[in-house]
Amino acid sequence: MDIALLGGTGDIGEGLALRWAADTDHGVIVGSRDAGRAREKADEYEAELASRGIDRPIAAEENVAAAARGDVVVLAVPPYHVRDVVADIADEVADAILVNPAVGISRDETGFNYDKPSIGSVTELVADAAPDADAVVGAYHNLPAGRLADLDDDLGMDTLIVGDEDAKSIVADLTDEIEGLGTLDAGPLANASQIEALTPLLLTLKQYNEELTDVAVQFS
Amino acid sequence: MDIALLGGTGDIGEGLALRWAADTDHGVIVGSRDAGRAREKADEYEAELASRGIDRPIAAEENVAAAARGDVVVLAVPPYHVRDVVADIADEVADAILVNPAVGISRDETGFNYDKPSIGSVTELVADAAPDADAVVGAYHNLPAGRLADLDDDLGMDTLIVGDEDAKSIVADLTDEIEGLGTLDAGPLANASQIEALTPLLLTLKQYNEELTDVAVQFS
Repeated sequence: MDIALLGGTGDIGEGLALRWAADTDHGVIVGSRDAGRAREKADEYEAELASRGIDRPIAAEENVAAAARGDVVVLAVPPYHVRDVVADIADEVADAILVNPAVGISRDETGFNYDKPSIGSVTELVADAAPDADAVVGAYHNLPAGRLADLDDDLGMDTLIVGDEDAKSIVADLTDEIEGLGTLDAGPLANASQIEALTPLLLTLKQYNEELTDVAVQFS
Repeated sequence: MDIALLGGTGDIGEGLALRWAADTDHGVIVGSRDAGRAREKADEYEAELASRGIDRPIAAEENVAAAARGDVVVLAVPPYHVRDVVADIADEVADAILVNPAVGISRDETGFNYDKPSIGSVTELVADAAPDADAVVGAYHNLPAGRLADLDDDLGMDTLIVGDEDAKSIVADLTDEIEGLGTLDAGPLANASQIEALTPLLLTLKQYNEELTDVAVQFS
């Protein structure tokens, strides 16, 4: 399976690229608005993997070309870019599963808050903007990017996932192939706001608890 | 310190009563609308503790009398009773810290949702209804009642806490004295809605993941 990581040059994209390359045989395509920047980061990821004895090519493309190559396309872009990126790729993803990890967050004097889009959630906004996509799944909202990108970290954390059963099952399987990462089903797309709202809570906890630098959550 | 558990005959109240009695020397007072029912459950808790070699008296009172005896008063009552119970005890808690674990939750076809009161949260509603209380703290919303009440369970879970610094510190210390239970600061009372919203998410996860029968959450 080929996994395209749009915005794969930063934040959560880097961690997912490294983990899928290290732990699975799936094709990994790093996307960026700038193809040169995508290649530069893909080279970095290859070097990081090589330093651990993993010889693994990472593809690099401009976002639209990356999306066209992906069976699964992860929108690892800043939330305020999601709508534009999805508009750009909407014609390229007819057979793909789109995965949205983006969350709208605002900050006030006491902490971080979930900026709920009027349509219900960022994930539903993606589904609305890409009506021809095979399916849209919400996942990875609550993963700590720094720990995900640090291959010395054993993770031991869960991510929550929403969407149609078939698509969700494919994304859950891909996710479970990453060692130390688990998935929990949070129901259909209509529940996306519930899992998106967890991210600002984690940031608020980080703000008030200095021992929580890159907060992960585990359910048991 | 004396801890009064209003609604201490059921749900989260039973677990907190047993744990504080088992793990600390603090006075534990079980409150109920019916004093006889409170005594009956307190006898049960004493028997449960005795069966584990712990000889420990548990006091029992009608809710208002229990509140008058508590330095810390936990509102372990159903959310739709919180307002009435607080109105009943408001004159008795001038020197007490009120702790609210109640959350308003509704259910629809896809899962559980947070019923956010117009004042912001159930915890802020309590603060509004008991203006003479020493302080109001939100805590214990996200604890699995069954596991808390099972003294064979090692817990290993966190609860999130909001409120004024001084009161929060006292409640956090009391909580940390329960083995296996940790607290994380979620900021001032204004953040109560964030921690209350975690509870319906846990119920939704329970609905979709059969291995999660009594969901606990841990942050790291």
